[in-house]
Amino acid sequence: MNLSQCGLNTITVRSLTLPEVIDQAQRREIPVISPWRDIVQAEGVARAGRLVRDSGLKVSSLVRGGMFTAPDASGRRAAVEDNLRALEEAHAIGTDCLVLVCGGLVGRDLPGSRTMVREGIEALVPAATAAGIRLGIEPLHPMMVGSRSVVATLGEANDLVDAIGSPQVGVIVDVYHVWWDADLMAEIERAGRRILGLHVSDWVTPITGELSSRGMMGDGCIDLPAVSAAVRAAGFDGPADIEILSDHWWSLPADTVLDVALERFQACV
Amino acid sequence: MNLSQCGLNTITVRSLTLPEVIDQAQRREIPVISPWRDIVQAEGVARAGRLVRDSGLKVSSLVRGGMFTAPDASGRRAAVEDNLRALEEAHAIGTDCLVLVCGGLVGRDLPGSRTMVREGIEALVPAATAAGIRLGIEPLHPMMVGSRSVVATLGEANDLVDAIGSPQVGVIVDVYHVWWDADLMAEIERAGRRILGLHVSDWVTPITGELSSRGMMGDGCIDLPAVSAAVRAAGFDGPADIEILSDHWWSLPADTVLDVALERFQACV
Repeated sequence: MNLSQCGLNTITVRSLTLPEVIDQAQRREIPVISPWRDIVQAEGVARAGRLVRDSGLKVSSLVRGGMFTAPDASGRRAAVEDNLRALEEAHAIGTDCLVLVCGGLVGRDLPGSRTMVREGIEALVPAATAAGIRLGIEPLHPMMVGSRSVVATLGEANDLVDAIGSPQVGVIVDVYHVWWDADLMAEIERAGRRILGLHVSDWVTPITGELSSRGMMGDGCIDLPAVSAAVRAAGFDGPADIEILSDHWWSLPADTVLDVALERFQACV
Repeated sequence: MNLSQCGLNTITVRSLTLPEVIDQAQRREIPVISPWRDIVQAEGVARAGRLVRDSGLKVSSLVRGGMFTAPDASGRRAAVEDNLRALEEAHAIGTDCLVLVCGGLVGRDLPGSRTMVREGIEALVPAATAAGIRLGIEPLHPMMVGSRSVVATLGEANDLVDAIGSPQVGVIVDVYHVWWDADLMAEIERAGRRILGLHVSDWVTPITGELSSRGMMGDGCIDLPAVSAAVRAAGFDGPADIEILSDHWWSLPADTVLDVALERFQACV
């Protein structure tokens, strides 16, 4: 894919500060960034907003809100309040999309945990609508149902979008989480213009853990051109954000990671 | 669940030989075992068959056939030939079920790899029918699509059974692989009497790898009574086999593992 369609998710180069990420993006002609909340907060939200706006870069999304599941009502209220702050941060850095990682299992109760997620998103919709920020439900790989997201397939995410019934809510397609799914292509088509983001990396095997085993595009199992073509055909015309959580790539200098990632983005996505 | 419904998969105590597993099962009043091929072959197939038959234990299944995917036709033929040997071993030890782990991705081509699996099973059906041995398609967790099984959900396994259309072919429900799936209960009901086996362990989080991170029943995320009740309600009346692939539990003496596993089987499944 052409670099004009490239976004850089900051976790890929997590040793960098926000100003350093901006500098890298500008020097390398990456037009879009997608910051995680920690580096926005580390900079101070107002200052982060000025930096991003002054840079001329676009911001595909803020990563991440969500984590709606909790054993008690006060925990779930606190989660919604934290998401309201995330909406403010998203507004400050000039993005119209907040990525949601929905939250893991509570009490061995999958249906109940999934209800908590729906209720959490519904509680957030009025503020998101008022702020003009869309909520992107990102299904995570099924290996993270216990720990991070009871929403594990694009089909489930689409069902959730249907159930909530707000134009403010859509889905994120992260290839790492959904590539294995026999229903993937049908669910991408079903999602259509409700796709709010595309994240790219690769699945390398064997994995060494659930969080930081991701591979560089081209090193793994995923038919990246097929998935990205399907997402484009469904109507999504935003950037493909490079999001690689990887102990291996985190151990290398950011310049090395970006050299390889941009070459691979153009060759393999 | 009562111990009269308990099966012991030999990988749970993989330091033991087949005679040692038989001895443990007899002393602990476990009525059923499910051996992996390696310990059957280590004993010699004919002798293993005599040992099992003399023991009076039942054998729920032989684990495992499958691995039908390969980059070229000769590799796929070799896989079918190996499965024919597995059928002979299954017959020798007196079981009527061969568990199939279908094989991982070849060449980034998921649909093509899934076709290889279907063709491999179809090639095996005549011999399985002649031997009176049923083939149990075991969907593995989606984190193993790259390495071990492109069949990743019970829905896919049911689709495959439908496509093959032989009464000799059914599915295995291993809770570790399928617990997370929002469609699980519906697909268990759909599978009905085509369920040929039930495997129990638990999902503990975070996982530390794709193969040997399994937990002891009761230590993890899975609503074991709900899944096992659904499998019973669908018509399966065989044993629940304890199958725990775990670096942690493998590091402990087999006696300790069995003490805990049998207590948990009765308390948590």
